[in-house]
Amino acid sequence: MKALKIFSDTPLSDSALKLLRDGVAPHELIFPAKPSISVLAKSHLDPAFTDADIAFGQPDVANVLRSDRLRWMHITSAGFTRYDTAEFRTAAASRGLMVTNSSTVYAEPCAEHVFAFMLAQGHCLPAALKSNCAFGSAAWNELRNSCALLRDQNAVILGFGAIALKLVEMLRPFGMKMVAFRRKPKGDEPIPIVTLEQLPPALAGADHVINILPDNADSTRFINRERLAAMKPGAIFYNIGRGTTVDQTALVQALHSGHVGAAWLDVTDPEPLPGDHPLRSAPNCFITPHTAGGQHHEGEALVRHFLNNFRHFLRGAPLGDRIM
Amino acid sequence: MKALKIFSDTPLSDSALKLLRDGVAPHELIFPAKPSISVLAKSHLDPAFTDADIAFGQPDVANVLRSDRLRWMHITSAGFTRYDTAEFRTAAASRGLMVTNSSTVYAEPCAEHVFAFMLAQGHCLPAALKSNCAFGSAAWNELRNSCALLRDQNAVILGFGAIALKLVEMLRPFGMKMVAFRRKPKGDEPIPIVTLEQLPPALAGADHVINILPDNADSTRFINRERLAAMKPGAIFYNIGRGTTVDQTALVQALHSGHVGAAWLDVTDPEPLPGDHPLRSAPNCFITPHTAGGQHHEGEALVRHFLNNFRHFLRGAPLGDRIM
Repeated sequence: MKALKIFSDTPLSDSALKLLRDGVAPHELIFPAKPSISVLAKSHLDPAFTDADIAFGQPDVANVLRSDRLRWMHITSAGFTRYDTAEFRTAAASRGLMVTNSSTVYAEPCAEHVFAFMLAQGHCLPAALKSNCAFGSAAWNELRNSCALLRDQNAVILGFGAIALKLVEMLRPFGMKMVAFRRKPKGDEPIPIVTLEQLPPALAGADHVINILPDNADSTRFINRERLAAMKPGAIFYNIGRGTTVDQTALVQALHSGHVGAAWLDVTDPEPLPGDHPLRSAPNCFITPHTAGGQHHEGEALVRHFLNNFRHFLRGAPLGDRIM
Repeated sequence: MKALKIFSDTPLSDSALKLLRDGVAPHELIFPAKPSISVLAKSHLDPAFTDADIAFGQPDVANVLRSDRLRWMHITSAGFTRYDTAEFRTAAASRGLMVTNSSTVYAEPCAEHVFAFMLAQGHCLPAALKSNCAFGSAAWNELRNSCALLRDQNAVILGFGAIALKLVEMLRPFGMKMVAFRRKPKGDEPIPIVTLEQLPPALAGADHVINILPDNADSTRFINRERLAAMKPGAIFYNIGRGTTVDQTALVQALHSGHVGAAWLDVTDPEPLPGDHPLRSAPNCFITPHTAGGQHHEGEALVRHFLNNFRHFLRGAPLGDRIM
């Protein structure tokens, strides 16, 4: 077999790069002229790209579209908004370009992050970590009585993919009642799927509304005034999908009125939020700066996931996390 | 059957009291002359107590010892230090007094609380909730790389009872490797039990050391300088047992040196800690004010647990959570 050329614009530590180089050998790694700082930043048209058989990272859409050689592109995020266009899909299909993403890599950290939010909320960690109340005092009794166990609570999950699947697995020991909204149910979901029409009553019964929706034309401001109003008073809202899926002005109002009991957001629109953004001062609004997918040795995890798929590619087996 | 007199010094909401009254009828509830504010505060010698067949709450040791009528005492905490003396045990045994506690009620909230600590630590919530770093920035990469997933990590649990059992169940989906130290193994533990001699190597391999030890003569300052030194550098220490089981001076030093990566404490000695206590300013030390056992409707949960045991008592069946 002729040596393949694998283009990588993924910023990697020395150890992760060695893992990648050793893993693809005897095939060849090639790099962009100017490595980008962020994996989501746009890189410029790159002459090196024209030689690539495979791309690993966040290759520029224009580079991909003008390549007549690229056979497989593996992207290092779970989201793939900028590739998710009719033009790109048509081009990929017509030239037999396979596209995979890294959703498996992010599923566990993202699901854990939501879970960390849910338990921090349930055990009132933000208030408890600041409190110095005495055992048996009125403040102490109030704090303890504000705690809510997960057992027997209801959750609605918006968007059902790899993250939701992990989350369901994690929540099982707590006897939670869960349903999910998925635009195109596949029939293999381990919890009941509700349709768009069934969503308002599901929201009305949920203690926890967990938004994992990706960013696309259908999801923009999906959590709008109407859907917030449909939620049970005091419900807790979580977002680890994309910030664009929420009408933030409506969310701020729902937090101020207390209709939404608390919001735990890992994503916002824009990111980061300006220091004076109304969400920052809204009551019971807790924001992490898009760190849900993070983990120690994230680069190694991404490389291992790519290499696993690379072995499938070499023997012509179906690729994991295939999105096109 | 003659109506039984059930003494209750448990502070209860109206709805919890109604639940209790309805649940024991036609048997009679009797109350102390002066209800105590805290369930752990000492009540005075109480004339009403001498009529009691059953006590539910935190009855005074002297009251219990001088009663020749009391047949069963159900205490509303999991800890029972002040009853755990040779004098009390001998007296209880000689007069056939059964003693039960409420460990089942506290197992789930306490296990969830530790779990909330573990996930908040793993996902760097204290730092992430304060950060406003931009996607792709150096601070952002550092924060994401500081996150540690639970998968495949090692934990040592100190003290194996109802809480540990719940915790093991909750941690199962994360593929954690767990061992526990239990002074008197019963042989039915779902994870390996280590002896006192095997504890130092177990501590040396653990990413998480979870202390659930009760307060007794054997456990005082169990987490001492030597055992802290035996831990793996950077290990995370959790305490939801009792504050007296830790040499806090040694813990402060271990936090300052970084040998202990972080401490998450729901219990301290004393409680609350003075505002200027060195633990309060130690790096990566996070303290909640003994709220781990709390839950919405805690009183109802305690009453339900008592009533369940009361039905067992009436038909002479073995009592749950029996400690003497």
